[in-house]
Amino acid sequence: MAGIIAPSILSADYTNLERDVKIVENAGAEYLHIDIMDGSFVPAISYGPNWVKQLRPETNMTLDVHMMVVHPENFIDQFADAGADIIGVHVEATPHIHRALQMIQNRGVKAEVVINPGTPVSAIQPVLDMVDQVLVMTVNPGFGGQKFLPSTLDKISQLNTYRTMNDLNFDIEVDGGINNETIRLAYEAGANVFVAGSYVYDKKDPAAKVAQLMKLTSGSVVTD
Amino acid sequence: MAGIIAPSILSADYTNLERDVKIVENAGAEYLHIDIMDGSFVPAISYGPNWVKQLRPETNMTLDVHMMVVHPENFIDQFADAGADIIGVHVEATPHIHRALQMIQNRGVKAEVVINPGTPVSAIQPVLDMVDQVLVMTVNPGFGGQKFLPSTLDKISQLNTYRTMNDLNFDIEVDGGINNETIRLAYEAGANVFVAGSYVYDKKDPAAKVAQLMKLTSGSVVTD
Amino acid sequence: MAGIIAPSILSADYTNLERDVKIVENAGAEYLHIDIMDGSFVPAISYGPNWVKQLRPETNMTLDVHMMVVHPENFIDQFADAGADIIGVHVEATPHIHRALQMIQNRGVKAEVVINPGTPVSAIQPVLDMVDQVLVMTVNPGFGGQKFLPSTLDKISQLNTYRTMNDLNFDIEVDGGINNETIRLAYEAGANVFVAGSYVYDKKDPAAKVAQLMKLTSGSVVTD
Amino acid sequence: MAGIIAPSILSADYTNLERDVKIVENAGAEYLHIDIMDGSFVPAISYGPNWVKQLRPETNMTLDVHMMVVHPENFIDQFADAGADIIGVHVEATPHIHRALQMIQNRGVKAEVVINPGTPVSAIQPVLDMVDQVLVMTVNPGFGGQKFLPSTLDKISQLNTYRTMNDLNFDIEVDGGINNETIRLAYEAGANVFVAGSYVYDKKDPAAKVAQLMKLTSGSVVTD
Amino acid sequence: MAGIIAPSILSADYTNLERDVKIVENAGAEYLHIDIMDGSFVPAISYGPNWVKQLRPETNMTLDVHMMVVHPENFIDQFADAGADIIGVHVEATPHIHRALQMIQNRGVKAEVVINPGTPVSAIQPVLDMVDQVLVMTVNPGFGGQKFLPSTLDKISQLNTYRTMNDLNFDIEVDGGINNETIRLAYEAGANVFVAGSYVYDKKDPAAKVAQLMKLTSGSVVTD
Amino acid sequence: MAGIIAPSILSADYTNLERDVKIVENAGAEYLHIDIMDGSFVPAISYGPNWVKQLRPETNMTLDVHMMVVHPENFIDQFADAGADIIGVHVEATPHIHRALQMIQNRGVKAEVVINPGTPVSAIQPVLDMVDQVLVMTVNPGFGGQKFLPSTLDKISQLNTYRTMNDLNFDIEVDGGINNETIRLAYEAGANVFVAGSYVYDKKDPAAKVAQLMKLTSGSVVTD
Repeated sequence: MAGIIAPSILSADYTNLERDVKIVENAGAEYLHIDIMDGSFVPAISYGPNWVKQLRPETNMTLDVHMMVVHPENFIDQFADAGADIIGVHVEATPHIHRALQMIQNRGVKAEVVINPGTPVSAIQPVLDMVDQVLVMTVNPGFGGQKFLPSTLDKISQLNTYRTMNDLNFDIEVDGGINNETIRLAYEAGANVFVAGSYVYDKKDPAAKVAQLMKLTSGSVVTD
Repeated sequence: MAGIIAPSILSADYTNLERDVKIVENAGAEYLHIDIMDGSFVPAISYGPNWVKQLRPETNMTLDVHMMVVHPENFIDQFADAGADIIGVHVEATPHIHRALQMIQNRGVKAEVVINPGTPVSAIQPVLDMVDQVLVMTVNPGFGGQKFLPSTLDKISQLNTYRTMNDLNFDIEVDGGINNETIRLAYEAGANVFVAGSYVYDKKDPAAKVAQLMKLTSGSVVTD
Repeated sequence: MAGIIAPSILSADYTNLERDVKIVENAGAEYLHIDIMDGSFVPAISYGPNWVKQLRPETNMTLDVHMMVVHPENFIDQFADAGADIIGVHVEATPHIHRALQMIQNRGVKAEVVINPGTPVSAIQPVLDMVDQVLVMTVNPGFGGQKFLPSTLDKISQLNTYRTMNDLNFDIEVDGGINNETIRLAYEAGANVFVAGSYVYDKKDPAAKVAQLMKLTSGSVVTD
Repeated sequence: MAGIIAPSILSADYTNLERDVKIVENAGAEYLHIDIMDGSFVPAISYGPNWVKQLRPETNMTLDVHMMVVHPENFIDQFADAGADIIGVHVEATPHIHRALQMIQNRGVKAEVVINPGTPVSAIQPVLDMVDQVLVMTVNPGFGGQKFLPSTLDKISQLNTYRTMNDLNFDIEVDGGINNETIRLAYEAGANVFVAGSYVYDKKDPAAKVAQLMKLTSGSVVTD
Repeated sequence: MAGIIAPSILSADYTNLERDVKIVENAGAEYLHIDIMDGSFVPAISYGPNWVKQLRPETNMTLDVHMMVVHPENFIDQFADAGADIIGVHVEATPHIHRALQMIQNRGVKAEVVINPGTPVSAIQPVLDMVDQVLVMTVNPGFGGQKFLPSTLDKISQLNTYRTMNDLNFDIEVDGGINNETIRLAYEAGANVFVAGSYVYDKKDPAAKVAQLMKLTSGSVVTD
Repeated sequence: MAGIIAPSILSADYTNLERDVKIVENAGAEYLHIDIMDGSFVPAISYGPNWVKQLRPETNMTLDVHMMVVHPENFIDQFADAGADIIGVHVEATPHIHRALQMIQNRGVKAEVVINPGTPVSAIQPVLDMVDQVLVMTVNPGFGGQKFLPSTLDKISQLNTYRTMNDLNFDIEVDGGINNETIRLAYEAGANVFVAGSYVYDKKDPAAKVAQLMKLTSGSVVTD
C-alpha cells in the first residue's frame, strides 16, 4: 500500500497560504496536516478553527487536524463545523479519551488518538478498536526544528503488529523530523501516513519534495 | 488629533493575507490589530507569534498585538521576538499586571493594558502612569458578530479625564462592534485608536471603509 | 416595599424535599434559593442542574439559583434548561462577568451578580446597569453555620444609594447568617430579598419562621 | 456467587428520595450507588457529601460513593464523615492514586479504584493488591442515556483473571448502560456488583427491576 | 512611632541560618520576614512551613510570613502550626480574601493582606477594618534585584489616610527595593514596617545595616 | 556493586545546614538528595533552586534533585543553573515526560524519571532507554513519617530485569521509609541508590547511620 503524504502548513508561508496549499495538492499530497497549538498543552500558539474553515474551500485534500490543546473536548464541534476530515486528540490531554473520540465520530469525522514520544502504546490499547488513525509523535510536539526520535519506531511496530493480529485497519501516522531518510524507517516499521513540514516547505521546491516522499513510500520500493 | 484606524486581520482572508494586509495599509491604516486567542482565556483559538513574525516583513504598519491568553507573561518574549510594536495584556488574565507591562517595556515594546466590559477603570488605576495604551473592550472578547456596548463609553470618558488631569499621554483604543456610527461615539468620548474588523473586511471595499473611518475620526469633524 | 423571603433548601431535608418545599411555599415564601457548590470555587459540593429540574414542577416559587462554581459560563445553559428563573454569578469566578450575565439574559433568565464579603462594590460597578439582582454575601460562601458579617452592611447601603442615584431598579439580595435580628439590619440598609437557610429549616416550624421574616421586612415596620 | 445490585439514585426522584430509596432496599438491593459529579472532572454537577449524610440514617444498604471529581483527596474525609461505606476514586483524576486509596482505608472505609472506558487495566495494576473494589466504567461517566460499551468486557475479564491468578478478592463493579441484557454480559465476564440507574428507576416498577437483575446474576443461572 | 525593621532571610546564607538570624536579632530587628514562594503564584520556589518551624525556637523575633502561593487557604494551618506570628495573603491569589484572613485570625495569628504593585487600594477596602497589617509590595514579587517602584508611594499614603480617617490601626508594611534612601520615602508616606533583604544581608555588616535602617525610621528624624 | 547512599536533607537541621551536610559527606555518602515540593503536586512546600545554589559550594557530593512540582519543565533551567547533578521528574506531573528528560540532558545534567507507588513500570517504558536513573517511590511523596510499601519491590525487580535484558545501565533509586531493614529488601530487588531521611538524621549519630547503610548495600553482603 502506498503511503499518504501530509504536508504540515505549520511550515508554509502564512501570508500566501492559498498558493502554498495548492502547490502541495498539485504535487499529489492527499492530506493537509494542520497543527493546532494553544500555548497551554504546548508552549506555542499556532492557529485554530477559523484557519481550517478558510482553507476548506481552497482544497480537496483531506484536512487532518492535530489538536495540541488542553480540554480538547471543547474544540471538537468547532473543528467539525469548520470542515475537518480527521481530528486527533492526545491521550495525555484528557482523562476521557474514549469520550473525546466518540464525540468526533458522532460528528461524522474520523477520530485519531495521538501519543507523545514518552507515552507507551499500552496507554491507548482500549481505544485501538475504535479509532480511524493513530498518530505516533516522532518528536516532542510544539517545537520546530527537532530531530526524529528513533526510539519511537518500536511503538510503530507494536501498533502495526497489534493491527494485524486484531484484524483492525486504523492508519498509522507519524509526525516530526520526517525527511527522505526517516520516512523510510517509519514506513518500514508500519506507518502509512507521513507528516512533513519544514522538509517540504523549504525554500526551494515543495512539489519536488512531496513527489520524492511519495516515491519513498510507494509499494514498489524494495526493502533491503 | 486625528484617530488611528487599526483593522483587525481576524476578519481578513487568511488564505491571502499578504493581499489583505496591503489593501488596508495602502488605504491609510496605521495599525494592524492582531487578536491572539488561546481557547482558554477566551473560547476561540486564533493564531500566535509565528503569524506576527510572517506578517512583519510584509508591512510597515504598527503591529498591535492583543493577547487574549492565560499566563500572558509566557508569551511576551515570543511576540517581541516576532516583531510586535505594541503588546496588550488583560488585567483579568494575570495577578501580576504591573510585572507583565514591565516585561513588555523592558523588551522595548509599547505596553498596553486591556479591560473587559465588566471591569472598572479603578482596577487599572495603578498602572495608568506607566502604560502606552489602554484598550477598552467595547464587546466581550473572543466572539465574532457582537454589538458595540454603549455602557463602555463611560469608561472611555473616565480614562480621558484621568489622562488630562494627570498629564499623562497614553492612547485609548477601542475594540468591538466599531462601525461608522459607533466610531463617532467612541471618538467623542475620548478614544483615539479604533479597531475595526468585520466592518472593514466585508466583501466589498475594505479600502473605502478604512478611508471612511479615518475621516470620521479626523480633527476636522465637528462635534454636535 | 415588602421584602421577599428566599428559603435556602441547602438546609432542608433532602430525603423529603417535596414536602419541605411546599411548607415554605405555603407559608408565603416567594423565592426558593438554590446554592450550587462545585467543590472547586468553594470547598463543598452541593447539587446541580438536575435538582433544579426536578424541583421545577413541584413549585411556583421563583427558582433563585446561586452558582458557586468555577467556569460559570459552562453551566448557564444547563440551569436555564432546568427552569431557573434567576441565575447568579460571582464576579470573583470569571474574568468575563459581563459576558456571563449577557448569556443569562440571552436565555430569558434574570441575571444576578454576586460579591463575596471581601469584594468591593467598585468591582461590579460596570455591570450594575444591566443586572436584575445583586447578591451581597453576608458570610463567606461554602460553609454552614457562620455568623452574619456586619461589615457587609456598608456595601448594601452603597448599592442602595447607587441604585437610587442612577435610577436603576435591581434587587439587592443578602445571603448568610440571616435571622430575625440580622434581617432587620439588612432591610434597613436597603436589601429587599433575604435568603434564610438554617434559621428557617430548623427542627420546629419552618412556616412560622417564614411568616416572621416576612413580617420583619414588610413596609409597615417602622424604622427607629 | 450471587451478584450485588446497586441502584443509582442519579435516576431517582430527588423530591421524594426517602421513598425511592426504600423501594429498592425492600426489593433486595444491597448497595446504593451514589454518583458524585463536580462539573470539572465531568461536565455535570450532581450532589455531594451532605446528600450522603442525609441518606445514611434512612437505609441499611451499603452506600457506594463514586467520586467523579478533581482533587479527590480533598473530599475523602467529607464522605467518610457522611457515612460512606465504599469510596471510589478515578485513576485519571489524580497523580497520587495509591495515596488516595490509602487515605480511604485509613478512615476505615472500603477503597475502590475506577477506570474510564479508555483507560487500560495496566494503569491500575500496582494498586490491585490493595483495593476492595474495582469499578470498570461501561460508559463514559458524567452523561445520561448512554449505551453499554461492549469493548469494556475485555477489561472485566482481564481483572477477573488477574484476581484469580494472584489470589486476590476485590469486587468488580460495572456502571453504565446496565439492563437485563448487558448485565448478563458483564456477569459472565466476571463482574459481581452491578450499578443500574435509569433501567431500575423507570416510571413503572423499580422493585421488579431490582428483582429481575438479581435473578439474572444469581449463581443458579446457567451460562450457555 | 519608630519603624519596625523586618530583614528577609531570602537573602541570608541558608547554610548557616541560625547565625544569620541571630545577627539581625541582636542588631535590634523586631520582625523576621519569611517569603514563601511556590513556583506557581510566582516563578520562584523558596521554602515552606518546615523552615518556619525550625526557625521558631531559634529566635524571639516576630515571624512575619508572606505567602506568595496559589490556594493560600491550604497553607494557613501549616504556618500557624509552625509558629508564624503574622501570615500574609495576596488579594490576587484568592477569590475568598475575607475567608482567608478570617481563617488566620481564628488560629490566633495576625492577618495581613498583600497587594501587588498593579493592584489598587480599592480592591482591599472591604477588609481594611479587619486586618492587622497591610503589605504594599514596592516591587513585583518573586524576583530578586528589582528597584523600588515610586508609584507605590501613593498607595501607602492612601492607606495611611484611610487608617486615620476610619480610626483603624493596622500596620503598613513595605517590601521590595528598600535601602537607606527608599526607606525614607516609604516612612514619610506612612509605612511603619520595612522589609529589607539584600540591602541588609550584603557581604559586609548586616547588623550595621539594621541599625542604620532603624535610625532612619525612628521618630526623631525630622521630615523636611 | 556497592550501593550509593543519598541522605535527604529534608530531615536535616535547616538552621545549621552546612554542618549537617558535612557530617554525611564525611561519613561516605556520595549523593545528597534534595526534595523539591511546591504545595501543588504534593501538599507540602519544601525549598527550591536557591537552596541548591547555596549548598553547591559546600559539598562535593552529587546533588540529586527530586522535583515534586507541577509544570516541571519550568524549573529545569533554574536547577541546572543552581548546580544540580541529577534532576528527577515525575511521569505523573507532565504530559511531556520525554521532552522534560530531553531538556535536562540538553543542559548536561543527568535525567531521572520518577514513579509514584500507584504508577506501573509500563508507564515509563518508552523513556527507559534514555534515562540515567529511575526513582521508584517506596512511599507516597510529600509526607513525612510513612512506612515503606513492600508492594513497590515488584516494580524494582521489573526494572532490574528490563535493564539487564535490554542491556541498559540506568541506576535504580528508592525513596521512602528506608531503614536498616527495608534497604536490604530494595537492594536485593535490584536498587542501587538509596535515599534515607529521618533514619539518617535522627538525634543521635547520622554518620553511623550512613556507614551502616553503606555496609548493608556493599557487594560483600551475602544474599540468603
